[in-house]
Amino acid sequence: MSNRYAIILAAGQGTRMKSKLYKVLHPVCGKPMVQHVIDQVKSLDINEIITIIGHGAEKVKEQLGEDSQYALQAEQLGTAHAVLQARELLADKEGITIVVCGDTPLIKRETMEALFKHHEETSAKATILTARADDPAGYGRIIRNEDGFVEKIVEHKDANEHERAINEINTGTYCFDNKMLFEAIRNVSNDNVQGEYYLPDVIEILKNQGETVSAYVTNNFAETLGVNDRVALAEAERTMKKQINEFHMRNGVSIIDPDHTYIGPDVTIGQDSVIFPGTTLSGNTSIGFECRIGPNSEISNCKVGNNTVIRQSAAFDSSIGSEVAIGPFAHIRPDSNIDDEVKIGNFVEVKKAVFGKRSKASHLSYIGDAEVGADVNIGCGSITVNYDGKNKFLTKIEDGVFIGCNANLVAPVTIGKGAYVAAGSTITTDVPGEALAIARASQINKENYVGKMNKKKK
Amino acid sequence: MSNRYAIILAAGQGTRMKSKLYKVLHPVCGKPMVQHVIDQVKSLDINEIITIIGHGAEKVKEQLGEDSQYALQAEQLGTAHAVLQARELLADKEGITIVVCGDTPLIKRETMEALFKHHEETSAKATILTARADDPAGYGRIIRNEDGFVEKIVEHKDANEHERAINEINTGTYCFDNKMLFEAIRNVSNDNVQGEYYLPDVIEILKNQGETVSAYVTNNFAETLGVNDRVALAEAERTMKKQINEFHMRNGVSIIDPDHTYIGPDVTIGQDSVIFPGTTLSGNTSIGFECRIGPNSEISNCKVGNNTVIRQSAAFDSSIGSEVAIGPFAHIRPDSNIDDEVKIGNFVEVKKAVFGKRSKASHLSYIGDAEVGADVNIGCGSITVNYDGKNKFLTKIEDGVFIGCNANLVAPVTIGKGAYVAAGSTITTDVPGEALAIARASQINKENYVGKMNKKKK
Amino acid sequence: MSNRYAIILAAGQGTRMKSKLYKVLHPVCGKPMVQHVIDQVKSLDINEIITIIGHGAEKVKEQLGEDSQYALQAEQLGTAHAVLQARELLADKEGITIVVCGDTPLIKRETMEALFKHHEETSAKATILTARADDPAGYGRIIRNEDGFVEKIVEHKDANEHERAINEINTGTYCFDNKMLFEAIRNVSNDNVQGEYYLPDVIEILKNQGETVSAYVTNNFAETLGVNDRVALAEAERTMKKQINEFHMRNGVSIIDPDHTYIGPDVTIGQDSVIFPGTTLSGNTSIGFECRIGPNSEISNCKVGNNTVIRQSAAFDSSIGSEVAIGPFAHIRPDSNIDDEVKIGNFVEVKKAVFGKRSKASHLSYIGDAEVGADVNIGCGSITVNYDGKNKFLTKIEDGVFIGCNANLVAPVTIGKGAYVAAGSTITTDVPGEALAIARASQINKENYVGKMNKKKK
Repeated sequence: MSNRYAIILAAGQGTRMKSKLYKVLHPVCGKPMVQHVIDQVKSLDINEIITIIGHGAEKVKEQLGEDSQYALQAEQLGTAHAVLQARELLADKEGITIVVCGDTPLIKRETMEALFKHHEETSAKATILTARADDPAGYGRIIRNEDGFVEKIVEHKDANEHERAINEINTGTYCFDNKMLFEAIRNVSNDNVQGEYYLPDVIEILKNQGETVSAYVTNNFAETLGVNDRVALAEAERTMKKQINEFHMRNGVSIIDPDHTYIGPDVTIGQDSVIFPGTTLSGNTSIGFECRIGPNSEISNCKVGNNTVIRQSAAFDSSIGSEVAIGPFAHIRPDSNIDDEVKIGNFVEVKKAVFGKRSKASHLSYIGDAEVGADVNIGCGSITVNYDGKNKFLTKIEDGVFIGCNANLVAPVTIGKGAYVAAGSTITTDVPGEALAIARASQINKENYVGKMNKKKK
Repeated sequence: MSNRYAIILAAGQGTRMKSKLYKVLHPVCGKPMVQHVIDQVKSLDINEIITIIGHGAEKVKEQLGEDSQYALQAEQLGTAHAVLQARELLADKEGITIVVCGDTPLIKRETMEALFKHHEETSAKATILTARADDPAGYGRIIRNEDGFVEKIVEHKDANEHERAINEINTGTYCFDNKMLFEAIRNVSNDNVQGEYYLPDVIEILKNQGETVSAYVTNNFAETLGVNDRVALAEAERTMKKQINEFHMRNGVSIIDPDHTYIGPDVTIGQDSVIFPGTTLSGNTSIGFECRIGPNSEISNCKVGNNTVIRQSAAFDSSIGSEVAIGPFAHIRPDSNIDDEVKIGNFVEVKKAVFGKRSKASHLSYIGDAEVGADVNIGCGSITVNYDGKNKFLTKIEDGVFIGCNANLVAPVTIGKGAYVAAGSTITTDVPGEALAIARASQINKENYVGKMNKKKK
Repeated sequence: MSNRYAIILAAGQGTRMKSKLYKVLHPVCGKPMVQHVIDQVKSLDINEIITIIGHGAEKVKEQLGEDSQYALQAEQLGTAHAVLQARELLADKEGITIVVCGDTPLIKRETMEALFKHHEETSAKATILTARADDPAGYGRIIRNEDGFVEKIVEHKDANEHERAINEINTGTYCFDNKMLFEAIRNVSNDNVQGEYYLPDVIEILKNQGETVSAYVTNNFAETLGVNDRVALAEAERTMKKQINEFHMRNGVSIIDPDHTYIGPDVTIGQDSVIFPGTTLSGNTSIGFECRIGPNSEISNCKVGNNTVIRQSAAFDSSIGSEVAIGPFAHIRPDSNIDDEVKIGNFVEVKKAVFGKRSKASHLSYIGDAEVGADVNIGCGSITVNYDGKNKFLTKIEDGVFIGCNANLVAPVTIGKGAYVAAGSTITTDVPGEALAIARASQINKENYVGKMNKKKK
């Protein structure tokens, strides 16, 4: 196989996005458009990937990191000019180069692989990825010669009536013989209304040199669409969402309403899990089998075991075991580690806390900066007082402890194994194992007081 | 009218569902597919219903209970073999038998009734439920003779070009003369590639005997679709959701976004109620008139009165009166009984509790295992301490009581009529009516302490 | 330019809505249908607007207020009879009158302006707003003469085959020479099956007088649709939602799922804000730039600054500054004023409270009837005890105060600048600045108590 290179065009400004955020960094299904493109390209067998950056160059580099080399296009003078910026990195190398736009987040590896294969099989010097458009208006039309190879690309504005009737259009993705690309591109001129250097002109130059240009027709036009404004961005999101959700459904996941379930491209879900409407699963999240997630849960970067239920809750950057019950209306904040069979009930916040097996915080609690053992029962309204206005401190609750309702555990503090904290107590010093800790005033009933009190209030 | 029988085919494995759950038990709009079919069949005038069970037989029986008799198909050898299992229960009976698949959750009683009627009127011995398909590929085509009766069914793979152009297809639902069905079915062979006994072969056998076979065309193809994977399951859910929501809208219920409102088939809703997006109403739930439910509320098996508002909340297996205000972010757990004009505010959990008229728990409370009278005010953060680590106990709060904020009521305990519990008190013994109960330490202000304290912390 | 008048037909009952609420008051995207119509009409240059009211007259007047004059149609005897009720206010005036139905919430000012212009340019005495319908069945067809002017309107039931093939239909909106309208309308008869006076009959009367009648074809049929039941109401909501969301997207707002984001017609949103699914923004709400709103947030009548995040929360009638973080699961109730960089965390309710810059209530608090200064930290579970069963009182928390967890601040009370309230304290009297306030019992650890206690319980 020849060497393969990829050039990702990611320098355009994207004025119609009306955004401070650089166009190719706008996310689709939670991942920046250009990252989608790079992830697909990376999965091919490619020797070098060069991303052409311009607007927002530093942010694009920050996003893509080691996934790509970079060439800076300081001024945006057209797509040919963009490709030209890769010359120092690529111009003298033997092989085939694919040129892809960074704003086509839906393009798939299979399509690019087919384009490479077609290019190699036809021994063309350039191959255009084309598609059949129901409404080709605005696109460059592909004029084929009698052998089926490409004669030329005619831009919509230059096309005659006969040419406009052609529905095979240029998607803007190409394969080139690498050396020929860089030779030809030097001859592209900017003698046009916009004064830009256009990449399709390379095709004309190669044809004038007598080279063969081929076209590979993908049957998935939608996949090749570029995103130029936020309406198109939402449309791309809808298409990718449908693909992702159908993938999971065919894999044995029930998604009650696939139109209204938002699953990131890198999420995994085990068989027989059910995802209820309004749920977002994002980032590096894995869900085990037979879970019930949602409705309206938001889970990001979490590892979730099997048979776990997470209802109307939010969870971030945490590990959640099997047969755990979370919610409704719970909030698991980052760096939490929740073991099997734990219950985190309604209106409970967990932050940077470990929960041992079978422990429960069922209602209205905040457990932060804490190590909770196994078989602990944390009563309703109980709180780890982890902050004194200056610093944060650790609370340790050992195995089998029972914390009564509305108790305050003022950290740093340790509640020893099997201890019992009485409801309403504020605990400021360590409690030995098996001890009862209590800190509360005695109850006084002042009889017939209410009548008098109400008189006073009037 | 002849006797009528129904055979429901519910023994297939459903490999493409990729599920431990038996195929016909997968729910659509919250109800298992086979239960939808049975519910529609039951509403016809049917003498006996036989469900053919195989995979997951016990679970299907558990689901359908007394709604059906059962015949076990121990090995899955095809649809004719499945029907044959009903022979001991049915073979010698006079009448008409409808055969329906348990994985067609959208089929309606009206369609089956029309099929029966057509069968009776044409005096055919078998009648096929057919439909016109836009894309008939994959379906058996109906070949009619010049009288309009059925000549034969041709499977897609066996069809010639002319036959493939026919768009009338076999939906897989049939009426048969019952005795003839069971006689013919013994002659079905498994001499085919899959080695299975196919029910459509009965049609050929009857034709060979010179019997008349009829076809009734439904104009609702979608209704007859079988669900074979979870993409089709989600599609069936979407179709049924649309039907259910349009029913309620035509009935005088406003549904802001019918695409994103999930109402079970047995739910009732009164006129002029408004259902906001993201809401799920399931099970045996009834909503009165002029209610406002949602957004994002989840209500299951609840009876809700009139003019009640339930916002961003969850409620299960409870009774909720009229002019009640719940939420946002409240959680009503099972066995609660909430009387008229009650307010259950944000971050309040109610479990197995009775609330009398006009009582309020407006914020951050847990009221579980409790009897709350009328006109009670439960202050913010107040909790019924119903659990001591071993057992659960009852809290009684009589009429007109005022519970101050962050109070703990340690059950078993009774707060007498009109009593007043001071904020921050932990109440461990009964409070007489009209008494003020207080249990708290006196406040001490240590002046100029903060500067010193902060110095120490550094 | 001629004087212009508008008559809005808003007296019909709307039986098919099955509602106590008067038909034209049913909301689309949160605003009553007739208000949408009036808002569009008002934005034209109109001398007088007359709304014809009948059913629910008082409620319609209450809704529209000073936006319109009113004429009462006491009995509903048809559209011509409805228009006739405006005769005392309008009959003797020179000018052009547009007649619009109050149940066409999607009609746009541009379309009505174009209708006026067309009317003036053609010097017709009446101009019908028409549209091309894919399925014209049920609509009145427009019969044009050879000059392109209108010959007549033929109702569907009266149309011959040739006329039924015409797809230009009468939308029910018209412009008239005002004086001619009121002269002609007196001659409309009710000699028809329903015994009603129909407005299209005016066209025939004018034609019989030899006047020119014109027709202006809008290319947006959907815009002219009348809402007659709640299925159509939901359809109108869907169409308007799409328009509103596309407007914001083209303006530089990212809407992750425009199908499932509910933005009212008067809401403004700054560039680079992201609206997550399941979010409702309604009333007079403005969102600044670079905010992140949702998922599942519900915001009504709030002014929100820039760079603010509101996740899974509800906020009403309040002002929220810039760089504020709210939620998940927070509730901002009316008359709150939250300054920049404030944090309102999970399970926190704020009501009628001011929060100064950088103050935090991060978890499980209720802050109501309160003035909170800047740089205040309100600990988890802390509560303003604002209600004694009779009256509500104010809590003042001055700059830099630290409130410990689960504290009760019993109002009226002031916590002085820089003071520190210990966790678990119930504060009933003012705390001087820089003081430490504490109100709690000492902790006692009863060693080896749990074993004995458990024995007793058995």
